[in-house]
Amino acid sequence: MEQTEKRKVYLVGAGPGDTDHLTLKAVIVLKHADVVLYDDLVNKECLSSCKEDAIKICVGEKQEEINHLIVMYAKAGKRVVRLKTGTPFVSNSGFEEAKTIADAGFEPVIVSGVSSITSVTEQFMMPLLDIQFNDSCRTINGDNIDLFSDIITTYHPRESLVILMGLENLKNIVEYLISSDFPVDTPLAILSKGTTPNESKIVSTLHEISQQNENFFIDVKTLTPAIIVVGATVNGWNHFN
Amino acid sequence: MEQTEKRKVYLVGAGPGDTDHLTLKAVIVLKHADVVLYDDLVNKECLSSCKEDAIKICVGEKQEEINHLIVMYAKAGKRVVRLKTGTPFVSNSGFEEAKTIADAGFEPVIVSGVSSITSVTEQFMMPLLDIQFNDSCRTINGDNIDLFSDIITTYHPRESLVILMGLENLKNIVEYLISSDFPVDTPLAILSKGTTPNESKIVSTLHEISQQNENFFIDVKTLTPAIIVVGATVNGWNHFN
Repeated sequence: MEQTEKRKVYLVGAGPGDTDHLTLKAVIVLKHADVVLYDDLVNKECLSSCKEDAIKICVGEKQEEINHLIVMYAKAGKRVVRLKTGTPFVSNSGFEEAKTIADAGFEPVIVSGVSSITSVTEQFMMPLLDIQFNDSCRTINGDNIDLFSDIITTYHPRESLVILMGLENLKNIVEYLISSDFPVDTPLAILSKGTTPNESKIVSTLHEISQQNENFFIDVKTLTPAIIVVGATVNGWNHFN
Repeated sequence: MEQTEKRKVYLVGAGPGDTDHLTLKAVIVLKHADVVLYDDLVNKECLSSCKEDAIKICVGEKQEEINHLIVMYAKAGKRVVRLKTGTPFVSNSGFEEAKTIADAGFEPVIVSGVSSITSVTEQFMMPLLDIQFNDSCRTINGDNIDLFSDIITTYHPRESLVILMGLENLKNIVEYLISSDFPVDTPLAILSKGTTPNESKIVSTLHEISQQNENFFIDVKTLTPAIIVVGATVNGWNHFN
């Protein structure tokens, strides 16, 4: 009972990059916000529906500082929105922020956004779950290669991989997949800055990527943020080109 | 060059259930539609932004018929929107529809929606990818138990499972996971009709579910549509209750 009377603090998903992917709910919540704490990657145009006198702060990566700002403004009686790229709980800190809000005596409300995982692959015509290609999709962080190799143990032709934050470890990831019996001709795509004007893709195979020189692996890091897709679905787009 | 001059046919994601999750782009596309072909599960209120004289057809499950309607209306010069629950390429037929549109000489445009996979789990405070619980999330169809057991081969404490269309096979799925060395105390949640007024959840463990009687497995089917979540993230919500 008590819980429903608590003041609300909103964790809002801004979607993948353009403003078109904002939801109706997100726009309404932003309209009423006194304070918006937004990620650096969030499209600034998403803030155009805010009140003129709303406080808009682009937060850095220091989670403690973000938590502090959320609670400080909420305690000052402000209507606080934490605006995140994609959707709040497909990130590294969404749950911690929700927990921080609850621990401070407020009610965290999640306003789901369009995830970049589903939307970026859709823009490139690569279905994550579709009877033509796959019955399973494994979304996995690629920033820690030990953890990655510990979790990824199997290959199945009806499963796609979506690897997040993987460009720094691309060489290791590809070598690990090949050594784990992923067929060397398994398709791999790098989808960079999807749904923005700067979007681009590289379509290749595990073998081709494994043969690249060091310069390639240095250059490829400039494509961040990017999603790596591995599996038959990568060739979906062929039908449309 | 030629491709950009083709007439467009829109595959639009309506989101998980309520109308608040419609995107700005979806609303604009629906406003201009002459014909909307929508899934039975789509909230009818999503159609309120359509023109008064727009043709609105609730399509069944026969894919051939749906493909036929899309092409027929497009060829008649109508602006056609195929409105699907969730997001277009996390379904069994999104790609086939896009292919049908392209093969008929039109340009398929995907308007991504909020996926029910991410949003329903968010409403129940179960993060799919969050440093507190997991580095990987495997989304897998549960309607074919042979395929399911063929793909799912490993357990990892830092990986969550999201099982779609799994209620018919719940007993088999749970037994298979236990026999595949998933710890018997692994948390399992059934999230039913998420983001709608009738949403509900069951929170349990693999062992507890495996001990249920036949009536339970018959009754549980009435919770369709539902998402089954397996892994540590299921206990995220505990923090807020």
